[in-house]
Amino acid sequence: MKVLVAKKFLNAALQKLARVVPPRNNNPILSYTRLTTTHQGFHLEGTNLELDLRFFVPAQVEGTAQLALPAHLFAQIVSKLPGETVEMSLQSGNVTVSSGGSNYKLQTGDVSQFPTIEILEGTAKVKGAGFKQALSNTLYCVANEAFQQVFRAQKVECTPERLRVVCSDGFRLAYFQVDGLDLTGNYLIPNKSAKEIAHLIDDQEGEITLAANTFRKQLSIHGNGWSLNTKLMDGEFPDYQRIVPSNIKATVNVRTSVLQEALNRTAVMCDSSLNNRIELQISDNKLHLWAENDYGKADEVLEVEHIGDPISLGFNVRFLSDAIKPITDEYTTLQLSGATTPAAIKGSQDTAYLSVVVPLRI
Amino acid sequence: MKVLVAKKFLNAALQKLARVVPPRNNNPILSYTRLTTTHQGFHLEGTNLELDLRFFVPAQVEGTAQLALPAHLFAQIVSKLPGETVEMSLQSGNVTVSSGGSNYKLQTGDVSQFPTIEILEGTAKVKGAGFKQALSNTLYCVANEAFQQVFRAQKVECTPERLRVVCSDGFRLAYFQVDGLDLTGNYLIPNKSAKEIAHLIDDQEGEITLAANTFRKQLSIHGNGWSLNTKLMDGEFPDYQRIVPSNIKATVNVRTSVLQEALNRTAVMCDSSLNNRIELQISDNKLHLWAENDYGKADEVLEVEHIGDPISLGFNVRFLSDAIKPITDEYTTLQLSGATTPAAIKGSQDTAYLSVVVPLRI
Repeated sequence: MKVLVAKKFLNAALQKLARVVPPRNNNPILSYTRLTTTHQGFHLEGTNLELDLRFFVPAQVEGTAQLALPAHLFAQIVSKLPGETVEMSLQSGNVTVSSGGSNYKLQTGDVSQFPTIEILEGTAKVKGAGFKQALSNTLYCVANEAFQQVFRAQKVECTPERLRVVCSDGFRLAYFQVDGLDLTGNYLIPNKSAKEIAHLIDDQEGEITLAANTFRKQLSIHGNGWSLNTKLMDGEFPDYQRIVPSNIKATVNVRTSVLQEALNRTAVMCDSSLNNRIELQISDNKLHLWAENDYGKADEVLEVEHIGDPISLGFNVRFLSDAIKPITDEYTTLQLSGATTPAAIKGSQDTAYLSVVVPLRI
Repeated sequence: MKVLVAKKFLNAALQKLARVVPPRNNNPILSYTRLTTTHQGFHLEGTNLELDLRFFVPAQVEGTAQLALPAHLFAQIVSKLPGETVEMSLQSGNVTVSSGGSNYKLQTGDVSQFPTIEILEGTAKVKGAGFKQALSNTLYCVANEAFQQVFRAQKVECTPERLRVVCSDGFRLAYFQVDGLDLTGNYLIPNKSAKEIAHLIDDQEGEITLAANTFRKQLSIHGNGWSLNTKLMDGEFPDYQRIVPSNIKATVNVRTSVLQEALNRTAVMCDSSLNNRIELQISDNKLHLWAENDYGKADEVLEVEHIGDPISLGFNVRFLSDAIKPITDEYTTLQLSGATTPAAIKGSQDTAYLSVVVPLRI
C-alpha cells in the first residue's frame, strides 16, 4: 500500500478522532485508529465504545490495505509534519510516514481485534449548524455526575417537522429546536457524546442526515466527510412541559447585554452559602438587582419594559446568567409566573430557544 | 474622602495586585490592599510577604484617608463596572464604589494591622524591557521544588556596567544580560517573585531603577507608576562559569525555526523512560536527528553549517527545545565540546543570551 494525502485533510480527521479515541485503554486496540483504503482515499475509524467515528479522507491510493495505527501518536506526528503532502507506505508491519525531509516509522496494531462499526444509512435531514446550536446551547443544563441518570443526557425529541434538544438538571431546563426532519421518537444521547457531536459538526456544515435503531439503542449521524454512531441511554425523561409557565403575571423586556453585564457584576457579591442568591424587584419599568455577602452589597438599577404586576423574587445568579448566554436577540424576555413558581427566559423575537428557571425560596 | 478615578488606571493596578496578594490567608489583613490618598491620587499597596507592591493611581481626591479594602473582591468589581469613571467615597466604615448606575458597598478592614512597606529609593538604572527579558528567558532553567534551595532562585549578577540573570537546575543553565547599571553584587530572587516582577514590567516600560539592602535581604525596584520590594534568598550560587564550554570541538549553525520544528516533531517519538533521549549526528554539513520508542522511530535530516570534528551525542529533547526558545536570531549556534561534556547554545549574532546543556550519557 502507498498513499499520498494532503496533510490538511489527514490532520483535520486525526485531530477530531483524537478527541474521542481514549489515549490509553485496558484493551490497547481501542487507542488505535483503523485505516481502510477505498478507491479515492481511505477511511479512518475510532471509537470509545459510546461514540464511533468514521472519516473519509480523499487521497491517491496504490494497493489496498486495512491496518491499525496508534491514534494519538499518529495525530501528533501529522500535525507537526513540514510540507503539504504526506506519503504513507506499508512495509513489513510498519507504516512509514514521510513529508519534507521527515521520516517516521509507526508500528501497526492487530487490526483483526478492532471492533466492528456499523453505521446506519441516514434518511432524516436537518441543518447541521442548527443541530450543533441545539446541542451546544442546552448543554449547560445537563446535570453533573452526582444526579440521576436521565438528567445526564441530552434528550433529542423528533417529530417529522422538527428536532428539539431538551436538557434539565432538575432545577432548570433549556430547549432549542430546529426545523426539518423525517424522523420521530425520543433519543437520550449521553452528554459526553453529545458534546463531541456538537464539536464535530462544522459551522459550515450543510444538511446532516440521521437514522435510529431503538432496538440496538443506536443513533447514526452523517455529515460532510464524517459519520458516527452514538449509544442511546435508557430511561424516561420527565414531562418537562408541565413546568414551562403558562400563567404569566409579569413580562419584562430588557436589553440582553445590559442584563448579562449587570448579572456578571452582581455575581461577585452573591453569597455562595445562600445558593448565590440575587434579588430581583420589578416595578415602574425598572428592574432592581441586589445582592449581599459578608464583604458588602451590590445594587443595580436597569431600565426595562414591564407589563403586568410588580414582583419580587430571588434566583441563583449563575442559573440566570447561564440561561441568558445562548440568547442572541437584542432583547431578552423574562416571563414570571410568581415569586416561587418557574420563570421562562427567552429572546424577545427568536422562538427556537427557551429556558426555565425555578426561583429560590426565601 | 471622595475620589474620582479613571476605571482604566484603577483596574490596571488592581489586576496586577490581585496576582500577588493571596486571596485567603491565616492573617486576613494580608488579603487586603491598603489605599492611601496623596495630593494627586492614591497609592494601592499589597504584599504576600515575599513581594511588596505599590502602585500610584492618578485621581481627583477630596479629603484624606488610609483604609484597607478586600483586594480580590475590589479587583473583580472594578473590572466589571460600566462607565469610564469610578467614584469612591468613605461613609461610616464602608466604601461606596459607583459607576454608571452600579453601586457597590465594600466593608473596610482594620488598616492599622496592615504590614509596613518600606521601599528603598532606587539609583541604579537598567532598561525595563531588557530586565523583563532577562528574567523571562532564563526562568525555564529554574529547578522545581524538589531540588536544592539556591536553584529555586533567579540569580541577578550586577557589575557597574551590566546586569546578568542566571538560572540553573543543576543539569543545565541559562543566562541573559542587559547593559547599563550602577549597582554591584549578587542577588538571589525567589523564582515566584521573579516571575511576578517579569509580569509587572510593561513591554513599553522605560528605565527602571534598583536599590539593594543586603543586610535586610531586600531588593527594591521602581518602574513607571509602580514600586516593589522583593525578599532575597540566602545561599551561595555555584560557580557556573566553569561549565560553560571553552574547548569547542564542533560548531553548528542551523536555522532556528527549522531546528525548533524538527525537535518538536521528534519529541513525539522520544522515550520518556530514557530521559526523552534524542540522538544528534553531525557530519558533512548535515545534522541528523533520530529518536525511537516502543511505537516507532523518527528520523530527520537538517542542512547545517558545520565547522570542526564530526560528532554524535544524545540530549533530553525538552532541554534542547527549552534552550532554543528564547533565541530570536535567524540562526542558532551549537558549540559542542564532546559527547559527554557541556554544549553551549546561543543565537549566532546576539550575545545577551547563552544556554548550557549537558549531554545524556549512554
